[in-house]
Amino acid sequence: MNALDLDTPSVFIDLDILERNLRRMQELSRSLGVALRPHAKTHKIPEIARMQLALGAVGLTVAKVAEAEVMPGEDVLIAYPVLEPKLGRVRDLLRSRRVAVVVDSVEAAVPLREIPALVEVDVGFGRCGVPSPEDAVRVARACRTFHGLFYYPAGMDEAGVRRAAGIVKETLAALSAAGLRAEVVSGGSTPNAARTPLIPETTEIRPGTYALNDASVVALGSAAPEDCALRILATVVSTSVPGQAVIDAGSKTFSLNPTKVVGGYGRFVDRPWTLEKMNEEHGYVKLQGPARVGEKVWVIPGHAGTCVNLHDEIAYGRAGRVEGRWRVAARGRVR
Amino acid sequence: MNALDLDTPSVFIDLDILERNLRRMQELSRSLGVALRPHAKTHKIPEIARMQLALGAVGLTVAKVAEAEVMPGEDVLIAYPVLEPKLGRVRDLLRSRRVAVVVDSVEAAVPLREIPALVEVDVGFGRCGVPSPEDAVRVARACRTFHGLFYYPAGMDEAGVRRAAGIVKETLAALSAAGLRAEVVSGGSTPNAARTPLIPETTEIRPGTYALNDASVVALGSAAPEDCALRILATVVSTSVPGQAVIDAGSKTFSLNPTKVVGGYGRFVDRPWTLEKMNEEHGYVKLQGPARVGEKVWVIPGHAGTCVNLHDEIAYGRAGRVEGRWRVAARGRVR
Repeated sequence: MNALDLDTPSVFIDLDILERNLRRMQELSRSLGVALRPHAKTHKIPEIARMQLALGAVGLTVAKVAEAEVMPGEDVLIAYPVLEPKLGRVRDLLRSRRVAVVVDSVEAAVPLREIPALVEVDVGFGRCGVPSPEDAVRVARACRTFHGLFYYPAGMDEAGVRRAAGIVKETLAALSAAGLRAEVVSGGSTPNAARTPLIPETTEIRPGTYALNDASVVALGSAAPEDCALRILATVVSTSVPGQAVIDAGSKTFSLNPTKVVGGYGRFVDRPWTLEKMNEEHGYVKLQGPARVGEKVWVIPGHAGTCVNLHDEIAYGRAGRVEGRWRVAARGRVR
Repeated sequence: MNALDLDTPSVFIDLDILERNLRRMQELSRSLGVALRPHAKTHKIPEIARMQLALGAVGLTVAKVAEAEVMPGEDVLIAYPVLEPKLGRVRDLLRSRRVAVVVDSVEAAVPLREIPALVEVDVGFGRCGVPSPEDAVRVARACRTFHGLFYYPAGMDEAGVRRAAGIVKETLAALSAAGLRAEVVSGGSTPNAARTPLIPETTEIRPGTYALNDASVVALGSAAPEDCALRILATVVSTSVPGQAVIDAGSKTFSLNPTKVVGGYGRFVDRPWTLEKMNEEHGYVKLQGPARVGEKVWVIPGHAGTCVNLHDEIAYGRAGRVEGRWRVAARGRVR
């Protein structure tokens, strides 16, 4: 079936683009001499995770235990402070594969016992992560199975990554002085994967968005529109306001990405239109040129990870043909 | 089970509050002399729709055909321009119940044939709706089964509603002069339900959010925090940044509601904290007072409709006890 014949709104993944994205990041990791541990929160689709593992990824990264429970592979990093009530489930996972979690507090570290833990150090993102090398040592000492250091360079610029490098270096020195050996130094992100050599102690990177890409990473400059594998097919349902069209896809299809500077709500593939605003089931389009009620259009979502998470099933294919559908098995798995 | 023992993040609906909200809106509609046709897109839960119908709602409103397909009742208004590819499904629904759709173009009106249609007139929201009485007549004439007039007063202020009243009046006069009788005049919204008498031709209203309420309608002044039936139970997972806590619920649990002026991301129930920012699985909390890793907290979501749409199941109960779980049957039904 032709992808344009999908009912709207529908989500479609272009396999040619997806495969190229996966290969490129695997090659980049190889050339940088670091392992690739893709973050599966972006696609939430086990079949894509299997493609990543087949290409050479050492394992997967996930955000929540419930994602790990449906993802394939023998090695998974739960990049999240996993607290007591969920540790039974982590121990269940540990019976059949390698699992590690990430901590930044003694309170989270102590109950882990035999569960391998990476200590997160904040390198400037200001979310999680211990604030100093001394705290890293304190938390690592509270881990019975200290496994390594974790940092998240997010979308910071080169100066930020250079500052992060200093923090990683200092923290590793403090850990080493305390007799704590970081077997793994886990970093990376889609926008900063290529800057990994600035933090040479890094042993693995965890980009996620690169598999699909989205209008945000295009705006950040780390991908081109033709690298975006994820698209929404939508239909113009109203043109009653002059200069505006309304499409049948809103925040319940795209998810809301309010930071207009990083990609806005979405990016039209073959129209010079702008997605200006969204309600739940309405996308407001600022038109250039005419639009016709019933016209179908392709849009690259603003944020791949939250968009995929709204859909039970996603069609995939190449050259505009639908070859099948994937179930978004990790959709909604927030616990 | 105590609601506080739910694993986090979890969504909980307080039945006492829900039932009070449903009764109040039904009583308001009765006192205003208009029918109540609640918008089910907010809760997406058939059991809540049945409660609304049992209290006296004349039928339901939905946004998409796929929502109508899982919602109960004998009368449903699909408040959306439903185009050709979906009309077969609307005809299937018509076999067992009353269905009407909303149009604002001749292109959408013509293929409807026997399907009853309300013509939408734009009363100032600038989304869908014909821009003039003449256009209303033109579109209504293109409907083989013209059923009435539709308007959406959203969250406009009193002056806006008064302007809307003029537009509705003029449009009805033009339709009447053209020999087109609007059997139904459908309006209303949660923030403007009480202003319905300003548009006295209104025969029914379609509020949705009132059932659950959220931080946005609290900010708009149409509900108090104690009227919010929907809450997220979350856990503090990190306190490593001074003055900040991170909770295990982000945009994949709350949905993103970027318009800080109308409720922000969410509202803490029993803490003087502010939900400042969200990533997919992280909520950034600006603290007042201390926070402890492992501490559980209740948060009222910024936007009920998009929050509910992220979850397969929602726990419900009263007085802090869980009595059961509802499946969010219309979740993700965007087509």
